Amino acid sequence: MSIRLAIYGYGNIGRGVEAAVTKCPDIELCGVFTRRAPETVQLRTPGVPVYNAADAEKYKDEFDVVILCGGSATDLPAQTPAMAKLFNVVDSFDTHAKIPQHFAAVDAAAKESGKVAVISVGWDPGMFSVSRLYASSILPKGQSYTFWGRGVSQGHSDAVRRIEGVLDARQYTVPVPAAVELVRSGAQPQFTTRQKHTREVYVVAAEGADRERIIKEIKTMPNYFDEYDTTVTFITAGEMKEKHSNLPHGGTVFHSGTSGINDEHSHIIEYSLKLDSNPEFTAGVLVAYARAAVKLAAEGHTGCKTVFDVAPGYLSPMTAEELRAKML
Amino acid sequence: MSIRLAIYGYGNIGRGVEAAVTKCPDIELCGVFTRRAPETVQLRTPGVPVYNAADAEKYKDEFDVVILCGGSATDLPAQTPAMAKLFNVVDSFDTHAKIPQHFAAVDAAAKESGKVAVISVGWDPGMFSVSRLYASSILPKGQSYTFWGRGVSQGHSDAVRRIEGVLDARQYTVPVPAAVELVRSGAQPQFTTRQKHTREVYVVAAEGADRERIIKEIKTMPNYFDEYDTTVTFITAGEMKEKHSNLPHGGTVFHSGTSGINDEHSHIIEYSLKLDSNPEFTAGVLVAYARAAVKLAAEGHTGCKTVFDVAPGYLSPMTAEELRAKML
Repeated sequence: MSIRLAIYGYGNIGRGVEAAVTKCPDIELCGVFTRRAPETVQLRTPGVPVYNAADAEKYKDEFDVVILCGGSATDLPAQTPAMAKLFNVVDSFDTHAKIPQHFAAVDAAAKESGKVAVISVGWDPGMFSVSRLYASSILPKGQSYTFWGRGVSQGHSDAVRRIEGVLDARQYTVPVPAAVELVRSGAQPQFTTRQKHTREVYVVAAEGADRERIIKEIKTMPNYFDEYDTTVTFITAGEMKEKHSNLPHGGTVFHSGTSGINDEHSHIIEYSLKLDSNPEFTAGVLVAYARAAVKLAAEGHTGCKTVFDVAPGYLSPMTAEELRAKML
Repeated sequence: MSIRLAIYGYGNIGRGVEAAVTKCPDIELCGVFTRRAPETVQLRTPGVPVYNAADAEKYKDEFDVVILCGGSATDLPAQTPAMAKLFNVVDSFDTHAKIPQHFAAVDAAAKESGKVAVISVGWDPGMFSVSRLYASSILPKGQSYTFWGRGVSQGHSDAVRRIEGVLDARQYTVPVPAAVELVRSGAQPQFTTRQKHTREVYVVAAEGADRERIIKEIKTMPNYFDEYDTTVTFITAGEMKEKHSNLPHGGTVFHSGTSGINDEHSHIIEYSLKLDSNPEFTAGVLVAYARAAVKLAAEGHTGCKTVFDVAPGYLSPMTAEELRAKML
C-alpha cells in the first residue's frame, strides 16, 4: 500500500517534493495545503486536491506524513509543532543556532500526539551533518571542513534585494579553490571566514540608482558580507533572467584525520554535492525521510528525530533483506 | 564509565583497532584474544592481557564488546556466530555475496544470547554501502558507480603470491581516470569491468623463474585478472620493501541522478576516501560501530545489525543533545 503524503506550502521546496514523489513508486501525493486561496494554486500533478492550510485538522486521518515546506525564519517554528500534533511530519528547518529550541518544541508536540517528526532535513543541515558525524566518529583525531558552493544563497540574495535601488539580485557563495586544495592535500589548516569563501553578487539596479552606494551597502553589510571578499556586478533584468534563473548549489565536507599509535597515517574523507537545483535536491532528501518517518511511526516510535537518529535503511523503499543482498 | 573492549585476532586490523582505541577517551582496550601462544604476542599497549582465543568463554562477563579481526574467507564465518553467543561483537566480513548467509548465522546466535552483533563494518562493505544507500534513496532516478583505488588489494596480492616462482607480490587496483571523469561530468554511462579499473602488479620473482609464464598466469587468472587490463612489473625484494610496504587504499562512490517533473536537473553526489592505511581506517570504522553496539545493547536491542540498521548518532561519543547543538 502506498504512503499517503501531503505537502504543506507550495513554493520552490513544495514543487520539488511534488516532482520527487513522481520517482517513488511507493509514495503517492494525496494533498497540498496552502495559505493562499486553494483555487488559485495550480499543481503540476493532476487530480491532487488543494486544501486551505487553516483546515489541516479536518484532514488529520487522511495522510501518513506531511512535508512542511515553509521557511525557517517564521513559518516552521510555528508550523512544525502545530502540524506534529496532527500528522507525522518532516521539515527542513535550517537555522543551525536555533535547532535545539525547535527540537524541544516539536518533540513536545509529537510526543503528545504520538506522532513522529523529523526536523532539519536537507543537505546542510542534513546530508552534510551526517557526513561530518560519520567522519569525525571514525577519525576522532582530525578536523572537518565544510565548503559551500559554488551556488546561490537565497538568504544573501534576499538581503541584497532589500537595499534601496536594487530591483533584483542573485548572490553566489564560492569556495576559495586554494583553500579547498590545501585541505584535500591532507593539511589541517586553520582558516578565517574570508579565506574559505568569496561572494559574488549580481544586481539589477533601478535607473538612476547610486551604484557606488549600493556596492558599499552590500560589501559592508554585517554578518552577510562584511567578513568576505565580495564582488558586485551590475547586469540587466534580461541577463538576470537568462543567466541566473536556476538555483544551483552544492559544496564539500572534508574530514582530514590521522591513525596509528603515533598518528603516522593520514586519511581524507570527502563528501561532495554538485546540484543543478538546490530546492529539488532538498526535496529528494525530505521525501526519503518522509518514508522513514512513516516506518518509524509504524514501529511505535514517537517524538522528534533528526538525521542523526534515523538509521539509513529506513530511507529506502527496499526491505532490510533486499538491502543486505543488493546494496551492502 | 569507559567501554571495555577486546580484540579477537591480532593482525593488521587488530593492531589498527589497538591504535584507534587510543583516540577514544570513552573506550578502553581491556584484552586481546589470539590463537597463537599468548606469551608470544607483544602488544603496543602496556598492561593489556593477552588471552588464548580458546578460553573466550571464561571472559564472557569481562568485556562490553569484542571486535573480531579475522579474515572473511574462513575465520569470521565460524568466529562471529560463536563469539556472538558470548559477547556483543563487531566484524568486517567483506565477502559481499555471502553476507545474507553470514547475517542469518550471526543473527540466530546473537538473538539466542541476547547480544548485539554488527557485521560487515568497514568501508566496502561499510561506509561505501551507506553512501550508496543514502544517495539512491534521495535520487532514486539515477545510477551509482563505485571506483576502488588507487590501492593495494590484499586478496589479489595473495593470489599472485600463490603462483610458482613468485616470492612476493603487491597488486594495486587503479580506477581508469577517463571513466571517473565521465561519471563526474554527469553522464550516466554503462561500463564493462575493463573500462572502470586497471590492475598493476609488482612481483619479486625467484631467481631463474620463468617470467613470461608468471606474467601469463597472472593476466589470465579467472575472476582476479582475466577481465582487466593488467600490467606486471618485476622488482627486487629491496624495492618491494622500500616502495610497497604501506597498505594505502581508497576510492569513490558516485551517484548521478536527476530531479524535476521532466528530469530537467542533474545532481552528482560523490563520496571519496583517500587512505594511507586501509587496515587502520577500517579499524576506525570498527571501533565507532563497537561503541554503537554497546549503546544498542544497553537499549535492549538484540540480534545482528549492519551499517544500514544503525543510526549515525550511535557512532559518536557525544550525546544526542550535544550532536544537535554542535554537529547538525
